[in-house]
Amino acid sequence: MQTIETIQELKNWVKKTKESGKTIGLVPTMGFLHDGHISLVNKAKAENDRVVMSIFVNPAQFGPNEDFDRYPRDWDRDRQLAEEVGTDVIFAPSVEEMYPRKSQISISAGALADVLCGAKRPGHFDGVLKVVTKLFHLTQADRAYFGQKDAQQLAIIESLVEDYNFPLAIRRGETVREADGLAKSSRNVYLSEAERKEAPHLQQALQLGRQAAIEGRDPVAVVRNYLDGRISGTIDYIELLAYPALTNDIKDEAILALAVQFEKARLIDNLIFNIKGN
Amino acid sequence: MQTIETIQELKNWVKKTKESGKTIGLVPTMGFLHDGHISLVNKAKAENDRVVMSIFVNPAQFGPNEDFDRYPRDWDRDRQLAEEVGTDVIFAPSVEEMYPRKSQISISAGALADVLCGAKRPGHFDGVLKVVTKLFHLTQADRAYFGQKDAQQLAIIESLVEDYNFPLAIRRGETVREADGLAKSSRNVYLSEAERKEAPHLQQALQLGRQAAIEGRDPVAVVRNYLDGRISGTIDYIELLAYPALTNDIKDEAILALAVQFEKARLIDNLIFNIKGN
Repeated sequence: MQTIETIQELKNWVKKTKESGKTIGLVPTMGFLHDGHISLVNKAKAENDRVVMSIFVNPAQFGPNEDFDRYPRDWDRDRQLAEEVGTDVIFAPSVEEMYPRKSQISISAGALADVLCGAKRPGHFDGVLKVVTKLFHLTQADRAYFGQKDAQQLAIIESLVEDYNFPLAIRRGETVREADGLAKSSRNVYLSEAERKEAPHLQQALQLGRQAAIEGRDPVAVVRNYLDGRISGTIDYIELLAYPALTNDIKDEAILALAVQFEKARLIDNLIFNIKGN
Repeated sequence: MQTIETIQELKNWVKKTKESGKTIGLVPTMGFLHDGHISLVNKAKAENDRVVMSIFVNPAQFGPNEDFDRYPRDWDRDRQLAEEVGTDVIFAPSVEEMYPRKSQISISAGALADVLCGAKRPGHFDGVLKVVTKLFHLTQADRAYFGQKDAQQLAIIESLVEDYNFPLAIRRGETVREADGLAKSSRNVYLSEAERKEAPHLQQALQLGRQAAIEGRDPVAVVRNYLDGRISGTIDYIELLAYPALTNDIKDEAILALAVQFEKARLIDNLIFNIKGN
């Protein structure tokens, strides 16, 4: 496995790889890897000749009062896990390397960012679009892999690729969970012991909400009622929307999503399902 | 020469061309070709194995009261000129092919569009960014060619490529002029006979303004005074800015640019020069 820290070195590697006719899969991450990331690499390995994992805690997607500074980092462990799963290249640039100057041109997620996490984290998805656009161009990947846990991010990136004809395919990875149902997340490490025991209720609640939605009952009320008294965290939102359009006009595919703020960790989870129960 | 009207057919051609290791030069145009376009194709041919010219009158870059409907078009003549100069592929998609749905994600030129034409044509450069981003991705060009006559467009596209690491180089083409100094433009055809005789004064005025700027005098006043009484059109703007930053902080390279609205044609012209006279 090769570790690349500069854009020039990455360009050289991409040029050489492309010239030899090899396909490239990209797994963008912010590091502190867990099984969700590993499953994306495995998927990428199965579909591409070479796999690049980017590890970059992207300041552009953190708000001024968010957890950029204390986002968990463990370079040595990440490197080992990436190597074990068969990653070919880790691209781990510095902030200065990725953002040598203030951007003049901006990319905006528009109305897709007016719901779910986007409504609570202004500018977050614009920052995501900025970094993925750069990573797509730098790696010239044939396929890029994103987990469904970040479902709004996935929907917005799919729109980016469709609207602007990026020459790559976006591939979805299923959410990977702990045995008790908690979605794997780098931020889980910041849960207290008590919070960690409560956290599986998020997925439990979503499953009850899904059933309610399919039966024509109000899933938001069901989720809220279930969580009431079972978790110490504060509910940030519970929403049912069409997926991936993220509108209220639900015809088939829907997403039931929530965010809960615990003391030091904000957790998100969702279920994507057919509203008709198919 | 091959004419391609669909995205799928273009993708097939690009894939084949890339696989054979050939480089691609892109000359984006709105058709109604003149010597300025031809000079860009010649430059592209000298630097690339294959040259794609796009011909697409892009509705996204026209305001509601602008001349999209009556923008000049002459498909047969364009086809012939493109073939004569040795273009390999004309990409001429329909509006529906390029914009099958309303874009969700937007790209904005920001402050770079607050001056010159951008200040007078709100949304114009966002529309330019939309179409060139799509064309860059669709053609996977190694180099793309733009004329300096549209100097603000050129500066904004250079920023787009730099900010987002597009894997292509932007190449500048010098403004091509008529014998009397009038910058070649598809819109010149809409000048009346009398206006056509006045139009070379735009370049004359800019040359006097450039001399004034280098000598530390006010170039805007010089241009305005010279044009006063010599042209029937209305001055839209005359501005001196740093180039390509388009700010008032001029250190070396500067642009002196103007726009004049004649009865049926709005003409622009500029000079880019070193403010120190080098």
